[in-house]
Amino acid sequence: MKKIIKGGTIITASETYQADVLIENEIILQIGREITDNVDEVYDATGKYVLPGGVDVHTHFALPMAGTVSSDDHYTGQKAAAFGGTTTTIDFVSQDCETLTESVEAWHQRTDNLAVTDYSFHMNITRFNKDIGKEIPSLVKKGITTLKVFTAYNNRLRLQDGEILQVLRIAKSAGMLTMLHAENGDVIDLLIEEALAAGNTSPVWHARTRPAWGAVEASLRGCALAAQARAPLYIVHMNAAGEVDQLEYARSKGLPVMGETCPQYLFFTEENLDQSDGAKWICSPPMRSKEDNLRLWEGLEKGTIKVLSTDHCPFFFEGNRPIIYENEPVMIPGKELGKDDFTKIPNGLPGVGDRLPILWTEGVQKGRITANEFVALNCTNPAKIFGLYPKKGTILPGSDADIAIWDPNKKVIYGVGVAQHRTDYNLYEGWRLTGYPEKVFSRGKLIVDGSTWYGKKGSGKFLYRKPFAEIL
Amino acid sequence: MKKIIKGGTIITASETYQADVLIENEIILQIGREITDNVDEVYDATGKYVLPGGVDVHTHFALPMAGTVSSDDHYTGQKAAAFGGTTTTIDFVSQDCETLTESVEAWHQRTDNLAVTDYSFHMNITRFNKDIGKEIPSLVKKGITTLKVFTAYNNRLRLQDGEILQVLRIAKSAGMLTMLHAENGDVIDLLIEEALAAGNTSPVWHARTRPAWGAVEASLRGCALAAQARAPLYIVHMNAAGEVDQLEYARSKGLPVMGETCPQYLFFTEENLDQSDGAKWICSPPMRSKEDNLRLWEGLEKGTIKVLSTDHCPFFFEGNRPIIYENEPVMIPGKELGKDDFTKIPNGLPGVGDRLPILWTEGVQKGRITANEFVALNCTNPAKIFGLYPKKGTILPGSDADIAIWDPNKKVIYGVGVAQHRTDYNLYEGWRLTGYPEKVFSRGKLIVDGSTWYGKKGSGKFLYRKPFAEIL
Amino acid sequence: MKKIIKGGTIITASETYQADVLIENEIILQIGREITDNVDEVYDATGKYVLPGGVDVHTHFALPMAGTVSSDDHYTGQKAAAFGGTTTTIDFVSQDCETLTESVEAWHQRTDNLAVTDYSFHMNITRFNKDIGKEIPSLVKKGITTLKVFTAYNNRLRLQDGEILQVLRIAKSAGMLTMLHAENGDVIDLLIEEALAAGNTSPVWHARTRPAWGAVEASLRGCALAAQARAPLYIVHMNAAGEVDQLEYARSKGLPVMGETCPQYLFFTEENLDQSDGAKWICSPPMRSKEDNLRLWEGLEKGTIKVLSTDHCPFFFEGNRPIIYENEPVMIPGKELGKDDFTKIPNGLPGVGDRLPILWTEGVQKGRITANEFVALNCTNPAKIFGLYPKKGTILPGSDADIAIWDPNKKVIYGVGVAQHRTDYNLYEGWRLTGYPEKVFSRGKLIVDGSTWYGKKGSGKFLYRKPFAEIL
Amino acid sequence: MKKIIKGGTIITASETYQADVLIENEIILQIGREITDNVDEVYDATGKYVLPGGVDVHTHFALPMAGTVSSDDHYTGQKAAAFGGTTTTIDFVSQDCETLTESVEAWHQRTDNLAVTDYSFHMNITRFNKDIGKEIPSLVKKGITTLKVFTAYNNRLRLQDGEILQVLRIAKSAGMLTMLHAENGDVIDLLIEEALAAGNTSPVWHARTRPAWGAVEASLRGCALAAQARAPLYIVHMNAAGEVDQLEYARSKGLPVMGETCPQYLFFTEENLDQSDGAKWICSPPMRSKEDNLRLWEGLEKGTIKVLSTDHCPFFFEGNRPIIYENEPVMIPGKELGKDDFTKIPNGLPGVGDRLPILWTEGVQKGRITANEFVALNCTNPAKIFGLYPKKGTILPGSDADIAIWDPNKKVIYGVGVAQHRTDYNLYEGWRLTGYPEKVFSRGKLIVDGSTWYGKKGSGKFLYRKPFAEIL
Ligand SMILES: [Zn+2]
Ligand SMILES: [Zn+2]
Ligand SMILES: [Zn+2]
Ligand SMILES: [Zn+2]
Ligand SMILES: [Zn+2]
Ligand SMILES: [Zn+2]
Ligand SMILES: [Zn+2]
Ligand SMILES: [Zn+2]
Repeated sequence: MKKIIKGGTIITASETYQADVLIENEIILQIGREITDNVDEVYDATGKYVLPGGVDVHTHFALPMAGTVSSDDHYTGQKAAAFGGTTTTIDFVSQDCETLTESVEAWHQRTDNLAVTDYSFHMNITRFNKDIGKEIPSLVKKGITTLKVFTAYNNRLRLQDGEILQVLRIAKSAGMLTMLHAENGDVIDLLIEEALAAGNTSPVWHARTRPAWGAVEASLRGCALAAQARAPLYIVHMNAAGEVDQLEYARSKGLPVMGETCPQYLFFTEENLDQSDGAKWICSPPMRSKEDNLRLWEGLEKGTIKVLSTDHCPFFFEGNRPIIYENEPVMIPGKELGKDDFTKIPNGLPGVGDRLPILWTEGVQKGRITANEFVALNCTNPAKIFGLYPKKGTILPGSDADIAIWDPNKKVIYGVGVAQHRTDYNLYEGWRLTGYPEKVFSRGKLIVDGSTWYGKKGSGKFLYRKPFAEIL
Repeated sequence: MKKIIKGGTIITASETYQADVLIENEIILQIGREITDNVDEVYDATGKYVLPGGVDVHTHFALPMAGTVSSDDHYTGQKAAAFGGTTTTIDFVSQDCETLTESVEAWHQRTDNLAVTDYSFHMNITRFNKDIGKEIPSLVKKGITTLKVFTAYNNRLRLQDGEILQVLRIAKSAGMLTMLHAENGDVIDLLIEEALAAGNTSPVWHARTRPAWGAVEASLRGCALAAQARAPLYIVHMNAAGEVDQLEYARSKGLPVMGETCPQYLFFTEENLDQSDGAKWICSPPMRSKEDNLRLWEGLEKGTIKVLSTDHCPFFFEGNRPIIYENEPVMIPGKELGKDDFTKIPNGLPGVGDRLPILWTEGVQKGRITANEFVALNCTNPAKIFGLYPKKGTILPGSDADIAIWDPNKKVIYGVGVAQHRTDYNLYEGWRLTGYPEKVFSRGKLIVDGSTWYGKKGSGKFLYRKPFAEIL
Repeated sequence: MKKIIKGGTIITASETYQADVLIENEIILQIGREITDNVDEVYDATGKYVLPGGVDVHTHFALPMAGTVSSDDHYTGQKAAAFGGTTTTIDFVSQDCETLTESVEAWHQRTDNLAVTDYSFHMNITRFNKDIGKEIPSLVKKGITTLKVFTAYNNRLRLQDGEILQVLRIAKSAGMLTMLHAENGDVIDLLIEEALAAGNTSPVWHARTRPAWGAVEASLRGCALAAQARAPLYIVHMNAAGEVDQLEYARSKGLPVMGETCPQYLFFTEENLDQSDGAKWICSPPMRSKEDNLRLWEGLEKGTIKVLSTDHCPFFFEGNRPIIYENEPVMIPGKELGKDDFTKIPNGLPGVGDRLPILWTEGVQKGRITANEFVALNCTNPAKIFGLYPKKGTILPGSDADIAIWDPNKKVIYGVGVAQHRTDYNLYEGWRLTGYPEKVFSRGKLIVDGSTWYGKKGSGKFLYRKPFAEIL
Repeated sequence: MKKIIKGGTIITASETYQADVLIENEIILQIGREITDNVDEVYDATGKYVLPGGVDVHTHFALPMAGTVSSDDHYTGQKAAAFGGTTTTIDFVSQDCETLTESVEAWHQRTDNLAVTDYSFHMNITRFNKDIGKEIPSLVKKGITTLKVFTAYNNRLRLQDGEILQVLRIAKSAGMLTMLHAENGDVIDLLIEEALAAGNTSPVWHARTRPAWGAVEASLRGCALAAQARAPLYIVHMNAAGEVDQLEYARSKGLPVMGETCPQYLFFTEENLDQSDGAKWICSPPMRSKEDNLRLWEGLEKGTIKVLSTDHCPFFFEGNRPIIYENEPVMIPGKELGKDDFTKIPNGLPGVGDRLPILWTEGVQKGRITANEFVALNCTNPAKIFGLYPKKGTILPGSDADIAIWDPNKKVIYGVGVAQHRTDYNLYEGWRLTGYPEKVFSRGKLIVDGSTWYGKKGSGKFLYRKPFAEIL
């Protein structure tokens, strides 16, 4: 089975050029001029861009939280991703069982039948001891080469600094990458207790009880631990100007530390949480200030921040009012759970489908980043750092045919009616976008064509990732 | 009783000028030309400098540690200080008793009869709870306006971040200053355990188990907590280049954070610990590298670091061999206690008497800092920051007549035979110095005249310090 | 003849303390408590500050320009200065005659009979050759230890880079300091020619034809030449953020380079020139932007910029309408000369009397700088750098009794009716000030008492300044 | 005519992947797996890298200077380049004739018959007036889109700042890029005059009379002029740490400024000029210090410096002793011309063939840069910036088949016997290299195969470059 995408302009992390792409079954076979092969299908991409499918390394599908569950499961979430041009996602396994093996197994159970695009897992390490330490390297054979640790959420997810140091060392020698959620758990717990005691229960207090300085110092703390373990570190969901400062500082000292930010931190501020519908913007870490937005953009432009991900973890804003999803009413408890107490609002936002369209318009169209940098941030760099390259994240002979045909002239008024997330709101409601995916292929199969969905549950494959991946 | 110091060149933090100083009893009464008062004593300072007596805000006299005690008590330590031109010292009260009041009282008991120059206390907060929190502000009436907290020494001295935040807030509202010992306790404990398990017991492992990155991140962590408490912070014994970087960073963000370094961190490195007599250089935090030395100097020169102190806490190198002190043999167990295990070596160094002579030669003589900056770092800034100004730390009408007449041309080959510490070694053995105190006055009383000692036990007064002192 | 100023709080560059000041004839004799001398006059300064008289190192009195002359001569200008608390001024000698000696002589002729406070001269070097080079060192004996050179005003004032390098070297070996007017003359000339050709003649084009980037590069160029000559350099009237960046850069590389800014550059922007009375703000270099204002403040606060001066060079806004000055009508052609052509507007602003009151309110009152920093910037640093210290710029026994008694609570609505400049407008019209000079002494003589003037023409002395002055 | 390069690992600026390259005539037709086309020739690249041919944007072939001529002409120079893996060169046209057209024509005359690989020209603007200004845009049609200006070489090559500003503006509107030789001509002339007068004639005085600070300030000056013209600027042969600082500064302010360095500035210092054969290292600007070497490396690693070029301009060290070149004795006067006077030593070095092999070993092998960064610096970035992309500088369908098959395991002891420059010495004599070109193709034609040369004079084509090229 051969297909050809003809006449498009291919964009990679460093190149922009016109060529045809020949796909055989799931793989890109050739790229060239005048490919004369007999093919089964021809897709005309004249006047369009041909991009690698997006790689989103930070999603939380069907994650139990605060008495409910994030409203996109692995099917609906990957489908929404695909409509936004993203064809690979990596989800976080909760350390729910006694062994990591069991925890991973449980995550496969809930995922594998639902997957419609390729996916992989990170392992959260939220409880550490000698046995866990011994088990960690065995994850590599299971295709899991990345761990996430937390300096916040005392008595729930947080590891002590000495434990993080041990995780970093084990990861280092197994060729794994440690990811860090950087906030100061002590400070947050104290501030929350005080806010509640003072009757401060509205959404904006979510942000006020998680101060940016905690994220800043915890980022440097993580870098320091990485230095002491001589291990690579990846700071997730960077949100504060000072985190960029500290990442830049640590990198200037030669440390193998990297970081990602997410679209929401580029556009929104604590003021959004102070609106009447402020709960929509509640996630952890919280929105910050305009200055933080700008410094994060600068971090992207200068190459300090290497990856854009989404931390996709959606909830309904009004979980007691059904929406229609694939022709059925759906209703999942959401943000309303915390209407009298911000600590009960489930933490998280939709985003997996928004990332590419929003960044194209705000980044590429507005001249902040080039189209090549767009591909680097959203596709190639995450694939490299997370051991998926060159199968994913680029357009090369031999790569999986995960491709988005992108119409740079397509105008869209964006919002919940366009985005395909299974939730009842969208952060970018009413934004005017220019540039949007037209067709999306997953391993050679056309799964999105305009507004039509051809994906099939269970067709996504688990990706066994490579250890000792690149450090960018 | 009136005295006059005639013909000298007075040096303050910003001025260098020739004038006579008229002292009445304990106080400087006038400064001027042609003071014609009838005076009882005249001291000719022609060709000499007239400096404020040094203020050393970081000493540990008679501190119990590791089965012994630091070998200078409040008498011998203050006497050694005076011989080096320092007339004010501030010692740290251990939180040994149930209440802070009792702990302070105990410290007075062991100090007041011995003091020969004026002195004050800081309060260590190494155990925190609601009651302690309530008691803290009462220290102000006792003249104690400064607290010290630790991020290292788990299960002994360390407070958790949330506790430090609470201390900072209480301090802030009481006008007190919080001082921080910045290292990462978790990392240190893990590394020590591993070093001992691997049979690494020599002194250099003291440094290898207390990595600089821990000090760097803990410094920023302290600054972040200070930011969240809107409270001033003072980082003690800065020793690593990265700490200077982070202090500069935090100050550039407008935080009210300050720091001190100590002479030993300007000159020595981890290599000193690797010598056969490496135990002599053991203190916490440890010596670092040449690069760290240089960056600390730069911090002093650019005004990032505001104070020089000593962290004076001497031990005998060979505590089983007596020295003669004031004509008596003295023998106090010391560094030899840890000859088979670096963790058993008492931590600390002599220094209170070395500070001014060493810094004069290495700083002023060698052109790294001006004489005015020397006075600012060693006298005026510490007096201002610690609520002693303008009684101490400068030469002004109304100030206490704590004065050193400094002979800038005096040549001294320095070492244990010259320094007056009650211990058997000196870090600066054989160093050639130019510039040395000739006469030292404490509240108008001549206590040092060349090599002659006129000080009297019990004549030093406890200094009730002012809250809401300057933040520099 | 003895006077005493009693009960005030003396403020110097590093100290704030209460003491009496005993003056004998022109000199401060003693500072102290309980000075019991028989004195002729007693001034009560209780509740007031006692400051050193201001030192303004950058004035242009009676300077011929654009067919007129700056409207304050050495009498009216120094009088206005005195009312604002400034008791020393340094004016620039134009290189009008064949020899420097003649040029200096001419400047004495026009100054000496008019001076009411002490003053000195800088020498402009705007034409360089071997003979001039040989003559420069002879200025030191004439009390002139500073030179000014220009990188702008092609064919008028500008020296070529190679000439500046030679001046710097000669200055270096004679112990003189070279001052730099940093703009790019080539760029300015081209832009002016084009603006006029395009009919752009309004005042704002003055700013648009003198771009900030020219000042920025010329500042670094000056520093580079200073580096090559191993000579000190002082950048005058810093006005652009980038100049602060470059000064900071050059200083961080160890170069002996310093800089001043002027009040007008801290408050006003190019937009002021675009107002209907924009000509009032015309001076060279021009006003810049808000960002530049802020960076200059930051430069002052961090100590990168060491001096505040005024570049006082006033003109009438409407030189065809008389004002009443000392009861006589005065009318001097001014800004109206250029109403149809911005290049014909005389360049310069009033300011010599505004500096201290404006900076006290905007700097000290508003918490941007301390009172000590105020004294350092306005009095002590300029006196040190320009070889006048400790005669001028501080309050010490032996110093000239140039003193301002400052009422920190005095409220003034400022403007042309309060300022004493001989011109018809004031930049700070209507500003509400808190803190103002109450009495001003010049060499012990009371010359200003509230609104009463006791100064006498010819009583000011020319100051022979010291070479090899301090580099701060 | 079809060829295939099979089994190699293709390296581009962002990708490393295995694929076959199908070439049809002069062009890359396809890249893929299992290309089954009938081809005429197959090259096995298993275990080898397939790199784009190098692009060297800075050469001086057969340049008359100091009474001789640079010893590589367009034939021998391009041949040497090809042996080192470089297949595109851009040479500088001297403004020798009255019109630019004539000057360009003359350069074609001396080049076109000799060229063996593709090449283009920059135009030096060393004399500016209205007519020249008008003629500049016409160069675009001649394929010349870049200009070089100088701030040094007074009365020979230097333009005044105002002229440079005009060139920048003209270039801007024509889509051309201005290149800057940044040194301070005034300073150099003065220092040379003094050195000669003092009898300082040895080679090291070449460096001592061209101080780095001049390069630093001239770089910022160029950036400032570019800012004022809103035009892009490219700083050639960056050699001093401070230039990197200033380029970084200007870029951080958003200016469209870029820069190159050359291998010699990464390895050698002024000390090389002080050796007995110091003349070998004489070029302008000169070698600097170890610190400069390191900062330039850092500039490459962090992406501040975007291009590596060579400034190839070789001379014989002993031009009175023949070498054998293509079996004939050749003897061209060289460095010996200045044995008694450093100003008479022809300025320039061999390098066009050294660049890739030296940087591979020192950069890629030693882990300072990745292979992708190597390609970006040496091939892709210069092609993009200079309007040659994607014909040159990358490996893509549609690109010219300029390809180097690189053997990463090949060990070479480098030096004059290996390098193919027509001169009698090599800077890297005896260096041990790992990694070397094995086969080199120019527009599909194999021209180098190991040590065999297949190139033909006149087969290189002049490259008409695109205006409005990328600014990186
Ligand atoms: Zn997280
Ligand atoms: Zn997450
Ligand atoms: Zn400590
Ligand atoms: Zn201590
Ligand atoms: Zn000027
Ligand atoms: Zn001026
Ligand atoms: Zn050049
Ligand atoms: Zn060149």
